[in-house]
Parts: sequence; structure tokens; C-alpha cells
Amino acid sequence: MGRIVQKYGGSSVATIEKIIRVAERIKRTAKEGHEMVVVVSAMGDTTDELLGMAKSISLNPDKRELDMLLTTGEQVSSALLAMALQETGEKAVSLTGWQAGIRTESVHGNARILQIDTKRIEEELAEGKIVVVTGFQGVTEAGEITALGRGGSDTTAVALAAALHADRCEIYTDVTGVFTSDPRWIKKARKLPAVSYDEMIEMAHLGAQVLHPRSVEFAKNFRVPLVVRSSMSDEEGTWIVEEEKMEKNLIVRGVAFEKNITRITVHGLPDVMENLSAIFTGLARENVDVDIIIQNVSGETENQVSFSVKDDQLNDALAVLEKLRGELGFKNVEWESGLAKVSIVGSGMVSNPGVAAKMFSTLAENGIFIKMISTSEIKISVVVDEEQMIRAAETLHQAFGLDRAEREVKTK
Amino acid sequence: MGRIVQKYGGSSVATIEKIIRVAERIKRTAKEGHEMVVVVSAMGDTTDELLGMAKSISLNPDKRELDMLLTTGEQVSSALLAMALQETGEKAVSLTGWQAGIRTESVHGNARILQIDTKRIEEELAEGKIVVVTGFQGVTEAGEITALGRGGSDTTAVALAAALHADRCEIYTDVTGVFTSDPRWIKKARKLPAVSYDEMIEMAHLGAQVLHPRSVEFAKNFRVPLVVRSSMSDEEGTWIVEEEKMEKNLIVRGVAFEKNITRITVHGLPDVMENLSAIFTGLARENVDVDIIIQNVSGETENQVSFSVKDDQLNDALAVLEKLRGELGFKNVEWESGLAKVSIVGSGMVSNPGVAAKMFSTLAENGIFIKMISTSEIKISVVVDEEQMIRAAETLHQAFGLDRAEREVKTK
Repeated sequence: MGRIVQKYGGSSVATIEKIIRVAERIKRTAKEGHEMVVVVSAMGDTTDELLGMAKSISLNPDKRELDMLLTTGEQVSSALLAMALQETGEKAVSLTGWQAGIRTESVHGNARILQIDTKRIEEELAEGKIVVVTGFQGVTEAGEITALGRGGSDTTAVALAAALHADRCEIYTDVTGVFTSDPRWIKKARKLPAVSYDEMIEMAHLGAQVLHPRSVEFAKNFRVPLVVRSSMSDEEGTWIVEEEKMEKNLIVRGVAFEKNITRITVHGLPDVMENLSAIFTGLARENVDVDIIIQNVSGETENQVSFSVKDDQLNDALAVLEKLRGELGFKNVEWESGLAKVSIVGSGMVSNPGVAAKMFSTLAENGIFIKMISTSEIKISVVVDEEQMIRAAETLHQAFGLDRAEREVKTK
Repeated sequence: MGRIVQKYGGSSVATIEKIIRVAERIKRTAKEGHEMVVVVSAMGDTTDELLGMAKSISLNPDKRELDMLLTTGEQVSSALLAMALQETGEKAVSLTGWQAGIRTESVHGNARILQIDTKRIEEELAEGKIVVVTGFQGVTEAGEITALGRGGSDTTAVALAAALHADRCEIYTDVTGVFTSDPRWIKKARKLPAVSYDEMIEMAHLGAQVLHPRSVEFAKNFRVPLVVRSSMSDEEGTWIVEEEKMEKNLIVRGVAFEKNITRITVHGLPDVMENLSAIFTGLARENVDVDIIIQNVSGETENQVSFSVKDDQLNDALAVLEKLRGELGFKNVEWESGLAKVSIVGSGMVSNPGVAAKMFSTLAENGIFIKMISTSEIKISVVVDEEQMIRAAETLHQAFGLDRAEREVKTK
């Protein structure tokens, strides 16, 4: 008799038949006596289709108008899901982001949720309704519609779970849980019964496409128990919980990888300390997500800084640098696209020295050249050539014993 | 240097190419120095496609959810049009119904506009922007999204023109103006340079699909000069203006017709006077639009009343009657679908007796059986078999001289 937030991704509601099946699944949970709030993404490829229309009008469509356009996708799927729930005999109502009280900052295409006014949702729940909320969107104080960015429906679900003090947040997707690596590429990848928030955040950031990292951060901050499951089966999923709730920490819990990385290097940068700030402030202002940063003072005058961005942000990044060039007086900018990032993640790394050394030697023995390195407490990432990405991941998956069954304890 | 509201229908924005062409047309008018507010319908068949999805989930989808679903169509087209305008170098912004301050009553599927808070639009105009507003929708005081019903984008445009004190409201559509009859069926139909608001209201109500009747009523009440034009050509359209601005009134200005009419007859109705009120109040409460009503006291006990509705409201109407049956104690209900209504319209009918007689004799001479008759000051409608509709319209079009060129004076 709890309160549950469920989130269904685009592939789970891709067709009318799937929407009807999702409605039946929701009804089953509701019949157990739970209060239900359901967050949905746009149907299947809707978002990409809408984006395609925008791109055929403008190579660089206005971000505000893009949000107006793309947020219709979730409004369609949520209205259809509410109808499907009503058809099963349940009371249901769909709410857009602004109707659900989801207030965001004034950034288009990539807004963050500032607060949720749950009044309307609480009223609908009190009337015994299943509340279907459009994912991925909110509204600014000025009444502008904003999109949370790709994968933002996960964040909507977790933020709602936190604001509504839900007992758990269930993320339904087209995979059965979180794996030690991407099973489409790494054949020996296994499903994990549980991972910690921190591990999941690193894995999400690193390209494991199960959950959006922001949503996991939110879950961690508000201690929302999360579970990732398949909308197509009743198989147990993967729980994402607090570190201390897990009985045993593997040293490395997963290998993540992602393509489409570009390394940009700024050569001949005078006054490095001040200018670094100018560069990264400028990039942040244009919403360029910088990942790895390496600063390298190679001589008296030839200072350089390298950083990595997604391929599709290369142009934005170059535009920022071009604008700063006169002011900062650096020599030139060089870049290399077609790179990939491969990372190992695990909370156990903190108390186990030598993990990095083992990673580098494993890669070296397999002839994989490392172009950039970045480390945190619980992960190590390397940038390599795209063609070597899968082999690097497979090698590391085996070297850290992830293809062997582990004695991990259920955390539920 | 005026303020102009333009409205583009679904066929004018059916494809990306057409949206770009519409943007260029708007830009041309804007470049003359006008302030521009543009209302758009959903692209092409979008509304029907969305409706089809809803119908495949439920035979009778919830009206509130249907409004949530259908109103996305205009949000898509308005965002795309704003992008296309920006691409031509103009400043533009799209606004949904609620962003544009369009407040409606709390009825779903068929709401009326109560008032428009023009603050946001005025701010955007003051910043030199072309404001693109989603047609067909508004918001209730409680924050619910409402649809104005089919054709409601015309009403949005006229209501905005009135609220913004626009100099004129231009309705762009796929025909070049208002014709003496539907040129797809009546070959000798001619385009009229001008019609009065009242004539247009009758023609609109009678199935001439150029303009939604509510929009013309709005235009009449607020004296908004309306012009109907083609979005594909620069041909002069038809002005819809006040009666006194027209130099010569033809006796009959148009012949309108529409199919899908059902006649419902309630037999054996006791206490006719009180019960009539109960029946039509009940129908109105369920939003059944009753058109012609004929009350016929045929004997001491066998009182009956007949009325006509659209075919698609037959089920709703029968449900209302079924519910009232026990209470009112009438004998039985009988209905006939597959009927059509043919009407002649003209302000000149007021001062020209004998028009009805001429209409009936013309139809009788052509073997067309009249099943119901309804008259107003400026129109006469008859209900006939659907198969006889076109022949009835053609015969009347010729009998009242509408196929001959008239000496009408431009009203601009």
C-alpha cells in the first residue's frame, strides 16, 4: 500500500499495442493498492522525427522553439496512456510538465528541475486517479516550456518520486537491468542484482545507456530507491541503492564505453591559469559539456590544454574558442574526432591500489594506445581510437573478472 | 502600418515546404511594416491521425484526454513556423493557447473562448517579433487544456484580432474565397467579392466549409473585417463585412448543402410543453447539437417531435433519450440517417416575399421530396435524401440566378 512512481521509456510505448500492454502492467500494480504516478517518454522515434522536421527547416533551430516542438511527443504518449488506463476501468489523468508543477531553470534544451509543486498531483491521487505525467519537460517561472534534455524522462520520474515521497521509483526500459557492460557488444556481460548510486552515476555518465546520470544523482540526493526493469518481462531488475546497503563490493563492477568523442587541443596559451578559466567559462556558457581536461605545460612558452567533448558539440566548442582567440592570444586549435572512451567503474577501487596500473598494462599488452586518461575515486577512463573501443572493453571485462559469476547479495 | 492577424489552415502548412512558403508570405506582409500575429492549424491530416490513434485505444475516448492529445498538433506546426520565420531573418516566437492567454470555458472538445489576456502577445509584438499562436485551443481557469472544436483555429484568429484591435483578420485557406455554392460539386458556382457577416454565418452553419460559424459571429460582434483568401495565390479573396457596407443585396447569395444528417422522431410524448424542454435541455447538456426542430401535434394523445442532428451525434442523442424515457413516458423513438440539408441564403430575402414558395416549387418540379423545413430571416433550409442533395443544390443555384455574373461592388 505504498506510493510508486513508474517510468516507461520510448521503446515501451512505441506503438498503440505497447501502450495498451503498459496500461495493463500499471493496472496490475495499482490493484495491489498502491498510489501510482507514471512518467512516459515520447513514443518510439517521435522525438527524432520531430527533430528531423526542425532540421529540415533550419540547420540550427532556435532552442526555445525546439523545446516547444519536442515536448509535444510526451504529451501525445501521456494522453494515449491515460486513455488506455481508463479503458481498463482505472481512473486516470494525464498532466503536462507545467500542469504537474515541474518548475525548471530558464535554459532551453537542457533545463534542470528547480522544484516541483505537487499540489495538482496530490489532488488527483486523492481522487483515486493514476496520474500520467509527461517526461522530459517543465516550465520556467515566466511560463516558457523547457525540455530537460535527452534521457530527461528518468529525471522527471526520480524528481517526482522524491517530491512525492514515493516508496520507490521503477524505471521500465527495453533491457532487463544494469549489466557489467553493454551486452549488445560484450557477449559475456552479466546482469548485476544491485549497484550503488555512485557506481551508477559513473556508469551513466560513461555511456551505459540504461539511466540518465542526472536522474541517479537526484535519486542519490533524495535517497529514492530505484529499480531498473524490463517492460516486456517480469524478470527481477537491478536495484540502485546506497553503498552501505550492499554486502560485498567488487573492485570493478562494470566496463562502460562510448563513441563519438572529440579531443580538442589549444596550443600556445599564455597566462595559463587565468585563460583556462576564460575558456571553460565560455564553453559552459554555451552549454558545451566538457568531459576530460588535460593541462600540459610542455615548455616555457608552448603551454597547451586538451579537453574532450562529444562530436556533435565540436562546432559549438570551436565557435567559443574562435571568439576568445583575440582576447586570449593563443596560437592555434587542433582537434581529433572519431575517438572513444572506455572506463572501469567500481566502489571497491577506493581501497584497492593498483587498479589503474592493471588497467594500463592490460591495454598495453593488447596493443591499445591510450590518448587521454581521467580518474575519479571510483572510475578510470581512457580515450582510445574508436576502432579499438570494443576490444579494449572486452579485454578489461575479462581482466577484472566480470565474466565470472559473483557472490553478490540481493539488497531488496 | 497596421496590425494584422493571419490564419493558415492545415492544408496551408501540410508539409515543411508549405510551412517555408507560408513563412515567406508572412515575411512579405511584415516587411510592409505591419505588426503580425499568425494563427496556425495542425499540419495536414495530423488531427485525424491523432484521433485515429485515440480511437484505436477507445471507441469513446475521454474528452479531456482527447484535448490533451489533439492540441499537440498545433504546437508542432506553430513551433515549426516560428523556426521557418527565424530562418528568413525575422524575429518570431510561438505561443501555445495557454501562453497566449486564451481563456476558455471548462468544456472539453468544444470550448468557447471567454477572454484573452493579451499581455504576453503585446510584449512580444513590442519586441518586434512575429507572434505565432496555436489555433484551436485554450486553457481553463483551473489550468486544463481545452480544444475549441473542429475549425476552431478560425475562431482563435478572429478572437485575437478583436482582442488585439487588429485592422483586419486574413483567413488563408485552400480556396480563393467564398463561392455561391461549393465549386467541387456545383460547376457554375462563382466566387463572391463580398458577403455580409449574417450571410456568412448562415452559410458557415449550413456546411460551406470556408469559415467556422463561431469565428464569423465573433467577427460580427467585434466588427473585425475578415477576408478569406488562398495561401497558394495572390488572387483577391472574399471580404466578410457589415451589411451596410455592401452596395447591392442579391435576394439569394448562396446555396449551401451538407450530408450526414439524421432525423430523430420521438413518438407519443405526453405533456408536450414541459417535456420538450426536458428533452432539449438533456441534449444540450451532453453537447448534442440539435439543428432543425419540428413539433407536430397530430392527435389527442399521439404528440410527436422531430429534430435533426449530425450522424455522428446519433448515439449520444439516443443515449439521452433512453435515459429520459422512464421519466417522460414517451412511446418510442424512430430515426432516419443518410439525409442531407440544402439551404439558400441571402440578406435580400427579408424584403422579398415569395422566395420560399419559389424554392419549394423548384424542388417539387424536379421530383425532390422535402422531409423537413426550417427558415430564418435570411435563409431557408430543407432536408432531403442524401442522393438528391447535389441535384437540389444545382437546381436552386440556377433558379435563383447565381450562375450569372452579378454587379456587386467591392467593399474594401
